[in-house]
Amino acid sequence: MSMRNVWRLTSRPIGDIADSDLAYTQEPLVPLAEGQFRLRVTYLSLDPTNRIWMSDMEQYMPPVEIGAAMRGGVAGRVVESRKAGVNVGDAYAGIGEWADHMTSDGTGLSRLPDIPGISMAQAFGTLGLVGPTAYFGLLDIGQPKPGETLVVSAAAGGVGQIVGQIGKIKGCRVIGIAGGAAKCRYIVDDLGFDAAIDYKAEDVGAALDRLAPDGIDINFEQVGGPIMQAVVERMKLFGRIPLCGLISGYNDLTPHEIPGYWTMILMRRLSIRGFIVTDFAPRFGEAAQALAGWMLGGQLKTRQDIRPGLEHALTAVRDLYTGGNFGKLLVEVTPP
Amino acid sequence: MSMRNVWRLTSRPIGDIADSDLAYTQEPLVPLAEGQFRLRVTYLSLDPTNRIWMSDMEQYMPPVEIGAAMRGGVAGRVVESRKAGVNVGDAYAGIGEWADHMTSDGTGLSRLPDIPGISMAQAFGTLGLVGPTAYFGLLDIGQPKPGETLVVSAAAGGVGQIVGQIGKIKGCRVIGIAGGAAKCRYIVDDLGFDAAIDYKAEDVGAALDRLAPDGIDINFEQVGGPIMQAVVERMKLFGRIPLCGLISGYNDLTPHEIPGYWTMILMRRLSIRGFIVTDFAPRFGEAAQALAGWMLGGQLKTRQDIRPGLEHALTAVRDLYTGGNFGKLLVEVTPP
Repeated sequence: MSMRNVWRLTSRPIGDIADSDLAYTQEPLVPLAEGQFRLRVTYLSLDPTNRIWMSDMEQYMPPVEIGAAMRGGVAGRVVESRKAGVNVGDAYAGIGEWADHMTSDGTGLSRLPDIPGISMAQAFGTLGLVGPTAYFGLLDIGQPKPGETLVVSAAAGGVGQIVGQIGKIKGCRVIGIAGGAAKCRYIVDDLGFDAAIDYKAEDVGAALDRLAPDGIDINFEQVGGPIMQAVVERMKLFGRIPLCGLISGYNDLTPHEIPGYWTMILMRRLSIRGFIVTDFAPRFGEAAQALAGWMLGGQLKTRQDIRPGLEHALTAVRDLYTGGNFGKLLVEVTPP
Repeated sequence: MSMRNVWRLTSRPIGDIADSDLAYTQEPLVPLAEGQFRLRVTYLSLDPTNRIWMSDMEQYMPPVEIGAAMRGGVAGRVVESRKAGVNVGDAYAGIGEWADHMTSDGTGLSRLPDIPGISMAQAFGTLGLVGPTAYFGLLDIGQPKPGETLVVSAAAGGVGQIVGQIGKIKGCRVIGIAGGAAKCRYIVDDLGFDAAIDYKAEDVGAALDRLAPDGIDINFEQVGGPIMQAVVERMKLFGRIPLCGLISGYNDLTPHEIPGYWTMILMRRLSIRGFIVTDFAPRFGEAAQALAGWMLGGQLKTRQDIRPGLEHALTAVRDLYTGGNFGKLLVEVTPP
């Protein structure tokens, strides 16, 4: 009998994710029902939101139930199909499970396009997930204009690198905040950011005062906590804050909530908008087309941090919350 | 020699505005220079922002300097002119002084249109100031859709009454928060709001749970503090908060800052935008035309609280911060 490997949530993490919060299990593959197909998973995407789904905090999708397969972004190929129009060998991507095989009726998945010159890891990791997050958050909510100052936190991460490069394409002055000299060098030397702030080595507020003495037009926010606080206090009149994530607090038992700054929001006429990439699902094609164009034209580079072996997913996902990844974090579940 | 009466700021208020913070003074009218004209002030508008201008808190215009004439919205008629195109008898309105006569080169003033069926007090108080604040804040930022639930605080005040009525015109369910039974009756019985919450007599959060069990789509925010907190915690997915004012904190030495709710803003994808009506100055004509149309068509009523006598301006302005006004607060400086 064929088997599949799957990570199941066994308890809700309290603080950091413990080894005992997830179990790596094996179980028989069940026969397909009519209308279903089986995906062999090639890549599993590890994202900050995984920690949210493990918890029962207020969130934008139902939490993963205790005992259920852990939810995650996946890309894979069809190995068996009883659904019309879905053929063996087709590539699909979307919301799936931390597993090497999964059964689906297609809900939450869509065809992964085959674009010459773009690998499956990029088509999935960049065009399919973090790219649209960066694209809609920066362009729709951030509304960058040439000459404006854009700050992006978690700048060497999956979304951050793309945000900064789109900012440069749009004529902004881009300051990235990242942890460690290597990441800071990378975003400036390799990706063309104007400046980098190493939050592990320098005071973010003081660095912003030096690098952006006139203030900040756009803060693409991903981390929250004291770093966000330093940026928000330096927003300019009519500044915009696309609120994409607050990763610094996801593992905290008593998250450092920064003040409301309501008076400042009023007086400086700031705009703040929370978003989740799926809000823009009907326009994903637009984003993928623009992003692919920039990638093929050499204007957009992305670095991926690919870890082989589904069994290492739990170790890998923890790196997101300590800054241990360098680029978009993927698990290679089976060879592409 | 002709004289003018003018209120001058003598010290920055600490907490409530003290008698000694403003001085009612008399001084000679100085002869006009070429390019200037003299306005005899008919109405002085008293607005929450007056308290901001008296302070040196972070604000959107320079604070009034100590010793200078107090700044305020004014409407009046030209009584003397050395400026081409400005004729005696013309009505002007805009940012001026707490005075019965003022000299201007026209900066900050514009012609007050004479609309049959609309009084000068309404043309100034409704169409010129609070109307556009309500119009742009609700329509541009709030983006009301039929069937949505709109909450407006300070609902019997100048801006609030108009916000609620535009909300009804746009098909929203409108809940007003006001202080006292008379104001609550007025906004429901006379203005057609769906419900009112008397924040002086009931718990705002409990009332919202009863009146809007599914949550709030739009919070037109004017007061801040615990009332704002009760509303913000009940915002729906994709809710919008046009942030128009935070009056409850203007007199406070230690303002009650409500939490940041950053996680909630992210998870519920809320939009928050601070604004000042002057941000929309190029589009004031659009607002005045729409508002006048609704007024003449009987869809928009406004109540004004007109106090005669410039010498009472200081007493009158304090009412704004205690809820002592009932409708748009104006001082009638000279008979219209």
